[in-house]
Amino acid sequence: MTGHDKTLRLLFPQWQGGGNPSYMFGARLLSWLAPDAAGPVEEVDVAKPDGQPLRLENGIPARRALMAQIQDARARIDRHRPDRIVVLGGDCGVELAPFAYLNERYGGELAVLWIDAHSDVYTKDVHPDAHAHVLGTLLGEGDADFLAAVKRPIKPGNAMIAGKRDIPAALPALRAVEKAVAERRHLHSVGPDDLATSSEPVLTWLRATRAKHIAIHFDLDVLDPAVFRSLTFAKPGASAPGVNDVPAGRMTMAQVVRLLSDVAQEADVVGLGITEHMPWDAIALRDTLAKLPLIGTPMQ
Amino acid sequence: MTGHDKTLRLLFPQWQGGGNPSYMFGARLLSWLAPDAAGPVEEVDVAKPDGQPLRLENGIPARRALMAQIQDARARIDRHRPDRIVVLGGDCGVELAPFAYLNERYGGELAVLWIDAHSDVYTKDVHPDAHAHVLGTLLGEGDADFLAAVKRPIKPGNAMIAGKRDIPAALPALRAVEKAVAERRHLHSVGPDDLATSSEPVLTWLRATRAKHIAIHFDLDVLDPAVFRSLTFAKPGASAPGVNDVPAGRMTMAQVVRLLSDVAQEADVVGLGITEHMPWDAIALRDTLAKLPLIGTPMQ
Repeated sequence: MTGHDKTLRLLFPQWQGGGNPSYMFGARLLSWLAPDAAGPVEEVDVAKPDGQPLRLENGIPARRALMAQIQDARARIDRHRPDRIVVLGGDCGVELAPFAYLNERYGGELAVLWIDAHSDVYTKDVHPDAHAHVLGTLLGEGDADFLAAVKRPIKPGNAMIAGKRDIPAALPALRAVEKAVAERRHLHSVGPDDLATSSEPVLTWLRATRAKHIAIHFDLDVLDPAVFRSLTFAKPGASAPGVNDVPAGRMTMAQVVRLLSDVAQEADVVGLGITEHMPWDAIALRDTLAKLPLIGTPMQ
Repeated sequence: MTGHDKTLRLLFPQWQGGGNPSYMFGARLLSWLAPDAAGPVEEVDVAKPDGQPLRLENGIPARRALMAQIQDARARIDRHRPDRIVVLGGDCGVELAPFAYLNERYGGELAVLWIDAHSDVYTKDVHPDAHAHVLGTLLGEGDADFLAAVKRPIKPGNAMIAGKRDIPAALPALRAVEKAVAERRHLHSVGPDDLATSSEPVLTWLRATRAKHIAIHFDLDVLDPAVFRSLTFAKPGASAPGVNDVPAGRMTMAQVVRLLSDVAQEADVVGLGITEHMPWDAIALRDTLAKLPLIGTPMQ
């Protein structure tokens, strides 16, 4: 560890990038569950859901709201000029401003570990939701509005996806974009089976980058929905993805803890984002309590 | 509704009666999810887990701690002399003091609706954990220490279990106690199938009691663990109960909301307890965050 010690915690309840208003509530519950912050805390201004479906704006739902939120996040970061940032999302898009800042802060040499079942390098023509674009944007690919938030793209070779599932052949457009971005930006990836008992594939990559500082994105969707159910992929009553759908994650909490612990021995962790918390039970219980006699406002 | 309007909210994070320290955390999360209280709020003093297994004390684990907590709950209730009580548990045992108080408050005429997959009328010789005894105690059956908290037992015929699952023939001791208590105390019960689309079985019982006031126990275990997973019965990785085990619940949140709404049209709801919240995902996420670099104290 270095002597840097100003850690900003950014609560970022963004939901529009994932298209589900409950990402906002998921962020608040995540914040409630987290250890107390040791440094300053900022909450990004996020537009509240108004019950209307999000509108496509030049191919991306809620583009203007997302841009305003990214700019607000950056302004809050610049106010503190932190050495490290913890981000509590919200959808995956919450990483864009903090990780872009951290790469500037560390001279363009930042390593990025993207712990996620999905690569998040898509473009609006193959996947409109912005939360599926954010790693691509950080690498310098994609929509011009969002790219404007990245003054210095992540150095080629300095990013790796861990826990990634293969996109089925039935979704050729997604596969094509993934392949093209990975080749152009030297994006590494490793699947859950290769990380089940060892962190070596990630440590080998990390040593090869010679990066001293690393930002880690932990999308909870990397987890197996059979053991952690507060995920979009674990919606009660919904069927599991079929062989031709975007697959769910396969890792366990213990594997992620071990991986991050091992990574922290090799490099200085200057960024950590936790995203896509979808606490179905807590949402259902909150909504039920609000409808019960005596404690809530009962139905008429 | 009557003109009574002093409602006490009792946060009661008791865990020893269910033998799992996480009922304490479940109570705190339940409280965080609940609508704001309109009246006074009291938190019962509950002994914190010390990592040691609970000791059997004359047949019941943690008997002394449970008795002290029941007495503290009663003292807090008596300080306010409320007309109505909302109880946020904790294990099912949290209902004992509040429901006993309410039956005194309403002249021994209180009706009790016990929404639960299980009858909670067991005795320590067939089921040592106190959370499985509490309805029996309220009816005047069982252990003398706990019975001392019930000055006026619920009137015979005035209690009904809703959502009850049958105990399998492989557990004859539990069946025998259930049958004996039900006969002696005229305890009614109705299963989840008969409540799936109608509240009539409960309303018919309630009208027959002629009770004006009702206290409702909502054990979350009445819910189907396939649709609500924050239950002891939905432990990740554990196998579902077999045909010879105590069965899990079968109701949905929507059915419970409808049932309570219908009941509130027939009688004045003066008590509502919510119990046995076991939020596996929130526990796992809290514990994981505490171990991660940057946000928690990483493993060494």
